[in-house]
Amino acid sequence: MSDYHQLRINGQRLGDTLMAMAAIGATDKGGCNRQALTDLDKQGRDLFVQWCEDAGCSVTVDAMGNIFARRPGTNPDLPAVLTGSHLDTQPTGGRFDGVYGVLAGLEVVRSLNDAGIETEAPLEVAVWTNEEGARFSPAMIGSGVWSGEFDLDYAYARSDKEGKTFGDELARIGYKGKAPAVARPLSAAFEVHIEQGPILEAEQKQIGVLSGVQGMHWYDLTLIGQPCHAGPSPMETRRDPFMGLHRILSELYQLAAEHGPWARATFGDIRVEPGSRNTVPEKLVLAVDLRHPDQKTLDAMDQRFREIAARVADETGLEHQIRDEWRSPAVAFDPKCVEAVRSSVAELGYSNKEMVSGAGHDSVYISRVAPTSMIFVPCEKGLSHNEAENAKAEDLEAGANVLLHAMLKMANKSN
Amino acid sequence: MSDYHQLRINGQRLGDTLMAMAAIGATDKGGCNRQALTDLDKQGRDLFVQWCEDAGCSVTVDAMGNIFARRPGTNPDLPAVLTGSHLDTQPTGGRFDGVYGVLAGLEVVRSLNDAGIETEAPLEVAVWTNEEGARFSPAMIGSGVWSGEFDLDYAYARSDKEGKTFGDELARIGYKGKAPAVARPLSAAFEVHIEQGPILEAEQKQIGVLSGVQGMHWYDLTLIGQPCHAGPSPMETRRDPFMGLHRILSELYQLAAEHGPWARATFGDIRVEPGSRNTVPEKLVLAVDLRHPDQKTLDAMDQRFREIAARVADETGLEHQIRDEWRSPAVAFDPKCVEAVRSSVAELGYSNKEMVSGAGHDSVYISRVAPTSMIFVPCEKGLSHNEAENAKAEDLEAGANVLLHAMLKMANKSN
Repeated sequence: MSDYHQLRINGQRLGDTLMAMAAIGATDKGGCNRQALTDLDKQGRDLFVQWCEDAGCSVTVDAMGNIFARRPGTNPDLPAVLTGSHLDTQPTGGRFDGVYGVLAGLEVVRSLNDAGIETEAPLEVAVWTNEEGARFSPAMIGSGVWSGEFDLDYAYARSDKEGKTFGDELARIGYKGKAPAVARPLSAAFEVHIEQGPILEAEQKQIGVLSGVQGMHWYDLTLIGQPCHAGPSPMETRRDPFMGLHRILSELYQLAAEHGPWARATFGDIRVEPGSRNTVPEKLVLAVDLRHPDQKTLDAMDQRFREIAARVADETGLEHQIRDEWRSPAVAFDPKCVEAVRSSVAELGYSNKEMVSGAGHDSVYISRVAPTSMIFVPCEKGLSHNEAENAKAEDLEAGANVLLHAMLKMANKSN
Repeated sequence: MSDYHQLRINGQRLGDTLMAMAAIGATDKGGCNRQALTDLDKQGRDLFVQWCEDAGCSVTVDAMGNIFARRPGTNPDLPAVLTGSHLDTQPTGGRFDGVYGVLAGLEVVRSLNDAGIETEAPLEVAVWTNEEGARFSPAMIGSGVWSGEFDLDYAYARSDKEGKTFGDELARIGYKGKAPAVARPLSAAFEVHIEQGPILEAEQKQIGVLSGVQGMHWYDLTLIGQPCHAGPSPMETRRDPFMGLHRILSELYQLAAEHGPWARATFGDIRVEPGSRNTVPEKLVLAVDLRHPDQKTLDAMDQRFREIAARVADETGLEHQIRDEWRSPAVAFDPKCVEAVRSSVAELGYSNKEMVSGAGHDSVYISRVAPTSMIFVPCEKGLSHNEAENAKAEDLEAGANVLLHAMLKMANKSN
């Protein structure tokens, strides 16, 4: 390993590669619109495949259109060390979300080529299909099928707003590959990504060392009262959903504070019926999103939420219902992969913060079948899914250097 | 007056009259759909006019279609004592809202005829056009024009959903009268009405002695924060409109409690933008309805509302805006008219409660140009604007008896 300590990726080339990819689907506002399985997605994929082949990789495409560019290792018995992310974007997306992770992987391969360094385990750079879920719901369906979360037939049957199916569109752009979309053994998997949040920038840290991904529970909380006229009805006898709402909100914010700094309580939507200005509503529906990186803590928050809603509803004369909308369990990344990132950051001397991801990533699914961890770099103002998405060249370079060294550690068993 | 103490209206006849009117526009569910200036409204008006002429009244129709049935007094120099309400209903309205007030007035005339009693001042029974505002907005436009709140041309130009104008429809049904729609001097004006609220029924009181009508202030409160993703954004740095909302709701409910039992704080509608489940909203708009029967208290509540919103917004990092949507000043009824009702109730021995109206009535406008007060009777479960609207025969009879004696007191100056 001592030979490699001074090894760094080529930041200039990484930046040029990112901008070349960003030109495909570039928007007037400096963002990118390269949605999954469109002609522009095909152009982006073709360019990536060409780059990988030029870098000496063999390229495989599986039945989900996931692309694997493989750089051979010296020990054919070792499973690959993989890194990957996605090339598809939101309709008004940015230039870095996902793309950075893919092209940082390519830059690792190129830099190793430049330095003439071989690894024991093979290295692979993966492109996961339709991570965003913007064109075909659900999100992360490429890595999801590969990891066994979804069936292939289910994925093929997903349709976009125009009724075009995932399967048809995948074949149309020529990326319905022959390899089975099934997990293979991996020595390790990494993903480097912009943070999509404000923490690293605010704390002036260059690298996020990720220990896992927040678990998320989504609910619809319904409060049912008695509609009545705003004038004649005494306050004391009302059964007013807003009287329950403000207490529940207050207690849930308190609950999040008790489990700070990583707990999240978010209320993204609300509606009332009948929604007439001078009538106490009969019904109120609140979207509740609770998150915590530790599943036991999240389960405890879930329990407290149910207790709070039931108690407040009882005390305010309301009926209540809690509908479970969706759950994504908390992910704890592989300790050896996390340590590979942590020690690489330390050796490289970057300022850093141990943290969890608040958003979903392909690595959530990959982590179910392979030792996995992630690396974050700051993004400007925490903006993502936005054409104004931006990141500093030196941070992108730093993240790719961490990825390089973490992959080297996991690929060379002799260390 | 001693001659009159034993005088009572004919409850059976009042009930029969109410049911005969309810047959015009009767709905399958036992309610009534007799909207303003429809063919059914014309049928109802024609029937009422016939009844009044049969009872010896002279009938005048003004330019707003307001109907005045006059029973002469012995002293032609005295202004009339008027009672009235409306015959139009909501689309899914009940049999008593408004109609009861009109037909109780007719029953007063009939009962005085039966007893051969003359009054010093003339008596008038009024039908005010388009009280409900269901077909033509705004509500109470007939009494509103008569009292100088609205211009006649403005009223004529109001149109229904089909684009038909008030003026054309009024002419079409033959009720565009020649008398000017302008207030004349009155000795007193009364209106008996179902409560349209739950208080009398809950407290088992037969008569509500009204001292006034709640003032109402309507607002849109907007809270503006910073949209951000539910996962990556720390709770501490969020600018989340819901964090302001729950505190503002809590303080406004507390404000209403401080000014109980008559203060009201109602939140009938709410919306957030962008309204995405996993995004902290950028913007929240809450409909706020504050009421109190004392205008000074309501003004103080208005001031406190503004202070609360500004302080909470400041403390939670939000911007806020308060848009004034509508105001209806508090009404204090004429003390002599209120006393006439109060003493009549006492003499008749009915259980009663001094109260204010939480809903608007024609009497709100009439009170601006004449000494006015109102009488309430209980309605089942407080339901109104509903086909299930109901009231007990004995309560309807009691309310008409109170109306009879209050009108007698004000019509006979020698008392």
